[in-house]
Amino acid sequence: MSGRLLGVGVGPGDPELVTLKAVRALREADLVVHFAKNGSPSHARAIAADHLKPGVEELPLSYPLTREVPRESGTYRDALRQFYDDAAARLAAQLDAGRVVAVICEGDPLFYGSYMHLHVRLSARYPTEVVAGVTGMSGCWSAAGAPIAQGDDVFVVLPATLPETAIERRLIDADAAVVMKLGPHLPKIRRALTRLGLIERAIYVERGSTKGAVMMRLADKHDDAAPYFAIVLVPGWEERA
Amino acid sequence: MSGRLLGVGVGPGDPELVTLKAVRALREADLVVHFAKNGSPSHARAIAADHLKPGVEELPLSYPLTREVPRESGTYRDALRQFYDDAAARLAAQLDAGRVVAVICEGDPLFYGSYMHLHVRLSARYPTEVVAGVTGMSGCWSAAGAPIAQGDDVFVVLPATLPETAIERRLIDADAAVVMKLGPHLPKIRRALTRLGLIERAIYVERGSTKGAVMMRLADKHDDAAPYFAIVLVPGWEERA
Repeated sequence: MSGRLLGVGVGPGDPELVTLKAVRALREADLVVHFAKNGSPSHARAIAADHLKPGVEELPLSYPLTREVPRESGTYRDALRQFYDDAAARLAAQLDAGRVVAVICEGDPLFYGSYMHLHVRLSARYPTEVVAGVTGMSGCWSAAGAPIAQGDDVFVVLPATLPETAIERRLIDADAAVVMKLGPHLPKIRRALTRLGLIERAIYVERGSTKGAVMMRLADKHDDAAPYFAIVLVPGWEERA
Repeated sequence: MSGRLLGVGVGPGDPELVTLKAVRALREADLVVHFAKNGSPSHARAIAADHLKPGVEELPLSYPLTREVPRESGTYRDALRQFYDDAAARLAAQLDAGRVVAVICEGDPLFYGSYMHLHVRLSARYPTEVVAGVTGMSGCWSAAGAPIAQGDDVFVVLPATLPETAIERRLIDADAAVVMKLGPHLPKIRRALTRLGLIERAIYVERGSTKGAVMMRLADKHDDAAPYFAIVLVPGWEERA
C-alpha cells in the first residue's frame, strides 16, 4: 500500500493567501518537503509555517548551484538533473513506505515551480494530487490594484533573460504582459517599454503581497537595481465599457 | 466615514481552493455582491456559499445582454458601460454609508474578471483591497497534473476568438499556452495546433477543478462541441533537467 504525493501551492507570500485545501493537505502530510537555495531558509516554508503540524517531519532540499551559473552550461544541467533524480528517489522511498508526502511551493506548483521536476518523475508511479495556488504575479497585480487583462486581451509572461528583440516582438504582439526574473536585465526591459510607448503604464514590483512590498511606476524608478525575483507588470486595461 | 471595497477572488470552482483571506473578507462584509448571467445563478456565489455569513445582505448584478452579441457592436458596449456605471453608483451609495462591500469573483479579480470594471470606477474614491485568487487556468492544469511552464518559458493566454493566423503566430512565439473562450472556435484551434505539431501535447478541459470536470488529450476528443468556458492547455514541459 503506497503513499500519496501532494504538490501544494502556498501562494505568493502573504500567509493568508494560502487556500483551505493547502491547509488540509498540510494537516494530512506525514512529511513536508521544501526547496531552498543552499544555506537560505525556504520561502514556501516561511509562508506555510503556521499550518505545519507541530513536530511534523520535514525534508529540506537545497539546490546544488546558485542561479548565477548559466543554465546553458552542461555542468549546471547535469548537477540539477542529478539533484532532482536524488530527491525523487528519497521521496519514492517515503511513498513506498505508505506515507503522505507534501511538497510545498511558492505560488502555483505547476507554473514555473521546482515541484514539477518531482511531479514528472513520480506522478505516474504514485497517487498524486496537485493543490493549485495563487501565483506570485496575481499577488503582485492585486497588491498594486492593477487590472491586468480583460475581455479578448492576449496576455504574455516573459522572462527578462530573453534577448531585447525577442522581448520587444512579444510585447508588440500582446495586450498585457508580466516580465519576470528582472535582476540585471531591467535596463533592457526599460528600453523596450520606452520604445513601444508602454513605459507610462508599466509597474515595478518587488516582493508583492508581502509586508516589505515595493511598488512604483517604472517611470518613477530612478535606478536600475532589481533583485532576481522583481517583476514588471504591463496592464492591458483600457476603458472599454 | 466611508466604507471599504473588497474585490475577492474565490478561485476556480472547488470551494476548498478559496484562500483564508477570502474567507476573512466574507466574514467582514456587510454586503456581498456577485455577477451572473441574466436568470442564472452566480458561479462565484456557489463557490463561496459556505463562507457567507448567515443572512448577510446580497446584491446580485445581472449582465444586461448575453455574450452572443458581438462585443464590437455599439449597442452592446453602451449597454455594458451603463450597467457598470449603474452598478458602481449602487456600490458607492453603500460605501458612502460606511459599509464593507465585498465583490466576489471566480478565479482572480483582476485577471479577466468583471470586478475590474467596478474597481476602476471606485478604487480612487474609496479604500479598496483586492484579494488575489487561484485562477481558472491554474485549477485546470492542476486538475490535469500538467506542468504548464518552467524556467525561461514564454507563456501566453490567447482568446480563441482571435483570427486563426493571429493565434498561430502567437503559438509559434510561445513555449506554453492557454487558449480560452473556446465555444464555436475549437475547429480553428485544432487546425492551428495540428499544423504546428502541437496537437499531441494539447489538453482539453471543461470545468477544471469541479466535480464535473472533463479532461482529455485534444487529439482524443472526437467532436468539436465545446462550451464557452472550456479551455485548451498547451504545456511547455520538456525534460530539461
